[in-house]
Amino acid sequence: MINIEDILNSHSNVKARTFKKGHIIQQAESSATPSIYVKKGILRSYIIDSNGKEHIYMFASKGYIIGDIEAMEYHQSTQLYIDCLEDCEVILFDKEQLLTILSKEHTVIFNQLLSRRIGRLQRRVLMLMGAPAIDRYAYFLEIYPELPIRVPQKMIASYLGISPQTLSSIRSEIARRK
Amino acid sequence: MINIEDILNSHSNVKARTFKKGHIIQQAESSATPSIYVKKGILRSYIIDSNGKEHIYMFASKGYIIGDIEAMEYHQSTQLYIDCLEDCEVILFDKEQLLTILSKEHTVIFNQLLSRRIGRLQRRVLMLMGAPAIDRYAYFLEIYPELPIRVPQKMIASYLGISPQTLSSIRSEIARRK
Repeated sequence: MINIEDILNSHSNVKARTFKKGHIIQQAESSATPSIYVKKGILRSYIIDSNGKEHIYMFASKGYIIGDIEAMEYHQSTQLYIDCLEDCEVILFDKEQLLTILSKEHTVIFNQLLSRRIGRLQRRVLMLMGAPAIDRYAYFLEIYPELPIRVPQKMIASYLGISPQTLSSIRSEIARRK
Repeated sequence: MINIEDILNSHSNVKARTFKKGHIIQQAESSATPSIYVKKGILRSYIIDSNGKEHIYMFASKGYIIGDIEAMEYHQSTQLYIDCLEDCEVILFDKEQLLTILSKEHTVIFNQLLSRRIGRLQRRVLMLMGAPAIDRYAYFLEIYPELPIRVPQKMIASYLGISPQTLSSIRSEIARRK
């Protein structure tokens, strides 16, 4: 299995960068939408809706790639803010750079990464539509096991589409069951 | 631009099939999860939640590929039902067949298709979390312009995560504005 970080590092044009906790890498309305590979730290992407409320789209820790694929693929300005929840080390790259790096073998690997992302998003959509909040939290713990101790609870609630109070009740319920 | 249908047809092992309206191609709990390329007709995928309520994940008309990518990638049995809303002509294939067909060039094309699907799903998640129902319906019309006259309104409401009554109010509101 080839490591994505190694593939990116093999290309001299990608940029390794460090950012402090709280740094905003991408603002909504921007037309510059890099892909961001996470070497260290945690980032999140989120929108602010017409009522001023934040909704977290995803978290990204070591090994994840975060960005706005919709904006990239459809050549739109982005709706997503991306910021650092911890001090971060990342590699910034864009699609054109990636296409020049990728061999046939790499492309097959990226196909699998993209397919798996689709699988995760499929589950996210289906859970947002039809699953109780407690099941959504259980799935969150499955895919992001280390996040509950690194990320504020209110952000996890925002990701799940529930209130912080509901998340607190769920956590109490789970603790009681154990 | 290479046509996906041509790529699939070039391989003798993929199966062209026809199904009557109402035929269920995939049942939940099945471990056989084909990818289905649509040549003609409309299919939908949906789950039935623990309260017996249907939630439509996606519609697929000519040129779409429908299936359960989560089940395929993570080797799980499927949660999704897939059925035919019209008489359908489809090509059934699986991932292994696809990998043997794809050249480097084709793989890059599939990368783009997968990326675009992620972009659509990103928007779907963000809209489910933060957008008013009328905006969700407007986006539905943008990506599925021909569906409102081919698919029952209650299914469109299910896809949007709203009640048929709410969808009816939205359609009246849009008609008044014109």
